[in-house]
Amino acid sequence: MATALLLQAGVPPLHAQSQADLLIEAELRGHPSHGLLRLQRLLARISKGLINPSTSGLQSWNSPSFLDVDGQRGLGPVVAMAALDALAERARTAGVAVAGIRNANHLGMLAFYVERFARKGQIVLALSTSEALVHPWGGKRALLGTNPMAIGVPTGGDPFVLDLATGVVSMGKIHHYAQRGEAIPLGWALDSLGNATTDATLAKSGALTPFGAAKGYGIGLAIELLVASLAGSALAPEVRGTLDAEHVANKGDVLIVIDPPTHPGLAQTIDAYLEVIRNSPAQNPARPVSIPGDGARRRRSLALEDGIEIDVQLWASLDNARVATPSPSVLQDVPS
Amino acid sequence: MATALLLQAGVPPLHAQSQADLLIEAELRGHPSHGLLRLQRLLARISKGLINPSTSGLQSWNSPSFLDVDGQRGLGPVVAMAALDALAERARTAGVAVAGIRNANHLGMLAFYVERFARKGQIVLALSTSEALVHPWGGKRALLGTNPMAIGVPTGGDPFVLDLATGVVSMGKIHHYAQRGEAIPLGWALDSLGNATTDATLAKSGALTPFGAAKGYGIGLAIELLVASLAGSALAPEVRGTLDAEHVANKGDVLIVIDPPTHPGLAQTIDAYLEVIRNSPAQNPARPVSIPGDGARRRRSLALEDGIEIDVQLWASLDNARVATPSPSVLQDVPS
Repeated sequence: MATALLLQAGVPPLHAQSQADLLIEAELRGHPSHGLLRLQRLLARISKGLINPSTSGLQSWNSPSFLDVDGQRGLGPVVAMAALDALAERARTAGVAVAGIRNANHLGMLAFYVERFARKGQIVLALSTSEALVHPWGGKRALLGTNPMAIGVPTGGDPFVLDLATGVVSMGKIHHYAQRGEAIPLGWALDSLGNATTDATLAKSGALTPFGAAKGYGIGLAIELLVASLAGSALAPEVRGTLDAEHVANKGDVLIVIDPPTHPGLAQTIDAYLEVIRNSPAQNPARPVSIPGDGARRRRSLALEDGIEIDVQLWASLDNARVATPSPSVLQDVPS
Repeated sequence: MATALLLQAGVPPLHAQSQADLLIEAELRGHPSHGLLRLQRLLARISKGLINPSTSGLQSWNSPSFLDVDGQRGLGPVVAMAALDALAERARTAGVAVAGIRNANHLGMLAFYVERFARKGQIVLALSTSEALVHPWGGKRALLGTNPMAIGVPTGGDPFVLDLATGVVSMGKIHHYAQRGEAIPLGWALDSLGNATTDATLAKSGALTPFGAAKGYGIGLAIELLVASLAGSALAPEVRGTLDAEHVANKGDVLIVIDPPTHPGLAQTIDAYLEVIRNSPAQNPARPVSIPGDGARRRRSLALEDGIEIDVQLWASLDNARVATPSPSVLQDVPS
């Protein structure tokens, strides 16, 4: 359905598949906030010309290992995957390659990207900026993006995949609490006056607290400056276009691919270490110690068996949007 | 005095200056745990052959942008600065360069390195591993290093410098509380049985809690795996040699230097943004919002006026260690 809706909106088949894959992967891993919920906004952005679904971005190598990417309003996963393909190839010979991407749409769940390339044996870092939603540590106003980062590292088995945003929680979670009329814990957010609040509705127009106090704030700000410096993109207070259907997306993304040297036995040593951590005593015996990515992998594999739950209203509205079934000949062009 | 003691231990003048600079810079910035306190251990390690003060490491380019460094037991700042010089030069033409360093001694305060090269216009990331002192989130045993990272980004003025370790506090701070017989806040550390404790003495033989809960744990673990993969160094449970004078240092370090593309006006935009953050309303009016690195810079400039405070016992023992004054001819070789 996701692919069909994108095709119907004029997205070329391979690009539609890439965007749909990203959204469905987020659903499979239990992150519906990065899943099909985003599809209607993407379709609206395409219809308004805020997304050009045909481009995969204009790539130019500034230097042997630095790739400048003008996203040309392309779909986030299309532009990012094209950049990663180029970086991965370059890193194989050069050791490392970096891309700064501006003018691309929302990349969505960053784990999607780093996992794919870590699975092929390379280390990948992905950093993105976003609208100002997070307050500086000790401050009252939202001045930083949620600035997610993901890190993928190959192991002997499934790659290590870390994917986190630099707010203590996501604004999506605050919205869920507000919808259900539930209070949020103190320490998650401030209201619009900059006062600590447990009222989810007030928090929606306020600011998220950075994770990890001053240290997490520092990491969020470092990502803000790194991405702007490398991508030439806007800083949080000026960023628009990942949460609306009115503005061009002017945030930035940075991708780093490193080809690790060969260290015989290291993959096995890492696997054994991760198993030691998993099997180490837990503070709460009902909650075993886990490695970042374990939960997503478990949820994904359950969802592939049992399916995913989609909000009834969301399903109905996506179903309504399907004004016509794409012809079989178009669907045949879509790789499985 | 620091330089003289290192010269007396047989350290070549330029290397002695580099190591002493690092320690004094930590003192100036108000981080005595990374300052002269470390000098006696360094001297003991030199006298036992655990440090070879003459080498700056064996560098080999695995590929055009990946520098493999065997530290050859060299002094941390000597090996790291030599690697950074090579990376900075390579990044100017290639766009980016990465080093994996194994078998070097403790790098100490990472801000020292990233600031120096960010001041020359390049983006620098520094990551190190260390002895297992931090427990996984939800776990009971110390299985991760404190795994510090530093990020330096050029601005129009002083560079942005972030430098943090991935424990919620340092073990040094726990030791200070224990010395003074003070209780530590709940949430800083576990005792040796893995139970939360406010007893600093019990915490000394326990485990530090990761900063930022699951997210900070994830970042610490990512650094652990990244560094081991790129440097071929040991993982935390096997690491020795940064806190003792008995073992070869087998932790690793990763340095990344990126030459940022030119984006006209960006430095001024970044400066203005940082000023907006600094001048934004504070939750506590007595504690203005600050940018990472501001405090260290302020302390450094005060200390350059007023001097630094050195613990009386530490001073006495360093003074005692000076068995002979180096001859003036040797001191003349030391650049100012």
